[in-house]
Amino acid sequence: MNEKEINLGHGSGGRLMHRLIRELLLKKLSNPVLGELQDSARLTGAGRICFTTDSFVVSPLFFPGGDIGKLAVYGTVNDLAVSGAIPEYLSLAMIIEEGLGIKLLEKIVDSVANAARKARVQVVTGDLKVVPRGSCDKIFINTAGVGRFIGRGSFSLKMVRPHDRIIVTGNIARHGLAVLAARKGLELGINSDCAPLSGLLIPLLKRGCGVKFMRDPTRGGLATTLNEIAEGCGYGMLINESELPLSARTAAACELLGIDPLYVANEGAAVMIVEEDAVKNVLRLLHRHPLGKCAREIGEISGETQKLVVLRTVNGSQRIIDMLTADPLPRIC
Amino acid sequence: MNEKEINLGHGSGGRLMHRLIRELLLKKLSNPVLGELQDSARLTGAGRICFTTDSFVVSPLFFPGGDIGKLAVYGTVNDLAVSGAIPEYLSLAMIIEEGLGIKLLEKIVDSVANAARKARVQVVTGDLKVVPRGSCDKIFINTAGVGRFIGRGSFSLKMVRPHDRIIVTGNIARHGLAVLAARKGLELGINSDCAPLSGLLIPLLKRGCGVKFMRDPTRGGLATTLNEIAEGCGYGMLINESELPLSARTAAACELLGIDPLYVANEGAAVMIVEEDAVKNVLRLLHRHPLGKCAREIGEISGETQKLVVLRTVNGSQRIIDMLTADPLPRIC
Repeated sequence: MNEKEINLGHGSGGRLMHRLIRELLLKKLSNPVLGELQDSARLTGAGRICFTTDSFVVSPLFFPGGDIGKLAVYGTVNDLAVSGAIPEYLSLAMIIEEGLGIKLLEKIVDSVANAARKARVQVVTGDLKVVPRGSCDKIFINTAGVGRFIGRGSFSLKMVRPHDRIIVTGNIARHGLAVLAARKGLELGINSDCAPLSGLLIPLLKRGCGVKFMRDPTRGGLATTLNEIAEGCGYGMLINESELPLSARTAAACELLGIDPLYVANEGAAVMIVEEDAVKNVLRLLHRHPLGKCAREIGEISGETQKLVVLRTVNGSQRIIDMLTADPLPRIC
Repeated sequence: MNEKEINLGHGSGGRLMHRLIRELLLKKLSNPVLGELQDSARLTGAGRICFTTDSFVVSPLFFPGGDIGKLAVYGTVNDLAVSGAIPEYLSLAMIIEEGLGIKLLEKIVDSVANAARKARVQVVTGDLKVVPRGSCDKIFINTAGVGRFIGRGSFSLKMVRPHDRIIVTGNIARHGLAVLAARKGLELGINSDCAPLSGLLIPLLKRGCGVKFMRDPTRGGLATTLNEIAEGCGYGMLINESELPLSARTAAACELLGIDPLYVANEGAAVMIVEEDAVKNVLRLLHRHPLGKCAREIGEISGETQKLVVLRTVNGSQRIIDMLTADPLPRIC
């Protein structure tokens, strides 16, 4: 580690965070399960149990299409779902700043309860801490999740091969823009995509149809997740800019604000790596579900072993897409 | 809820927190597992899995006998152990304030790693968030834990009957005083009791020797835990002040500071409810272990159904011990 202090980039989901995790956390806490660096852990000797955690520090607490409560449930539900597990149980731990309105807390807990019902998970254990005024910003929520693996179990990047196809299940860049709009008082007309992916992904996985790996591109956006996949599988990839699922409104907002949509957080989309032969069938199944109707094949795993993510732009040129380094939007989730 | 705002008492572990949990959280998140209000959840349909969570916001981060890292591991390990489960897996989620020194973070992660080794648990999944300066106080840590129930499974307060005996496994009031001393710059010569209880409790449970219920008296202290047990089992209890395991040094410090040791947090002691016939054997086994050598029988479950916790004082009078209401020491864990 070169830095002496933690900066916002260390929480960005991008390059700096990966280095901090690798050079500090993994070194000290090393064990085979943690070392896999998946969105959730496969517990050995504990049946087919999948275990994950996430803290939510989003600001503001409410934004178009969602709020911290909904995010805290779906964020963890999605980490289980993209790992190939049916989400079953959540823990709910809240750190609350002294002075938070009880009505506001009720609204957040209502949102947690609604989201849990929709995602068919039970909140079975919890914790509550209150800190003096000024020691935190309103409320932070942590959820951990326990789920059960489907079929043969968790995915592995080791199964990914050249010519495998890359699918994104929904329109990108909505969550980050919705939070930014709420923070800056902008009217972008864009709602967060915050949604539980289990209903979309689990039936598909139960059929066992050629899906090799999944991850949800949250902090750091699609660009960061694609780089994580490239580094994990050992192959580069070629992405077609023209195929990126991006609504005209989102594209216009990104243009206006000078933000690259590839680096904006999503909370209701998944990246899937799928066998070449299976891609049509997977897309057909995805398109049947409301959350999958914008699903697109965006590119493929390439044979090159420098693990570069290359974007073929709409005007035919190519550029290398790196992981996020600094954090353009702190406290996005 | 009469209050309009969250105050520090809502996080005290005492009366106000219980009301907030009952009237807000349980109402909205209601399900049978959460409704049991145990330190951890028994997952139905998921084998013999026990699941729990705790956030740690202690200030200062380092105190005599411990630090936030050690506390975050042992706190969750102990919630599993007192539930009758062998702690196996932890998640680790950190919310870090921008500007935290990397060296300090390393020290905390080292402490997590050491504690995990000592408690024989693996940190298998994690999360890292960074918030801008002023949005949290240095670092907050959440751990969730997954364990496996021993023998016939979790305890139940429904099994508790009059004449059952009450044991406390270690000297009380040390953790709260150690944190207070660090915060105020006092030299009390008292170390936190922060320790993993699994090594003490699990072998005892494996023998199945008349233990009906256990809980660790953390926030709210022994008085609050005894009241929780009384309310949960439907019987009152009679506690002998002369039998309370309290070192002379701790007693003197409490006297000096005007603090009642019954309300001071512990992080390495358990309250056990044990069958009358079994108490001698349980004490014998506890005394063999370094963490149990101060274990004492402190009283018994009484027949009265007003669920009062009555203290028989050293001078022969009786007084009712209620739950903690306000929080004398916020951010104790």
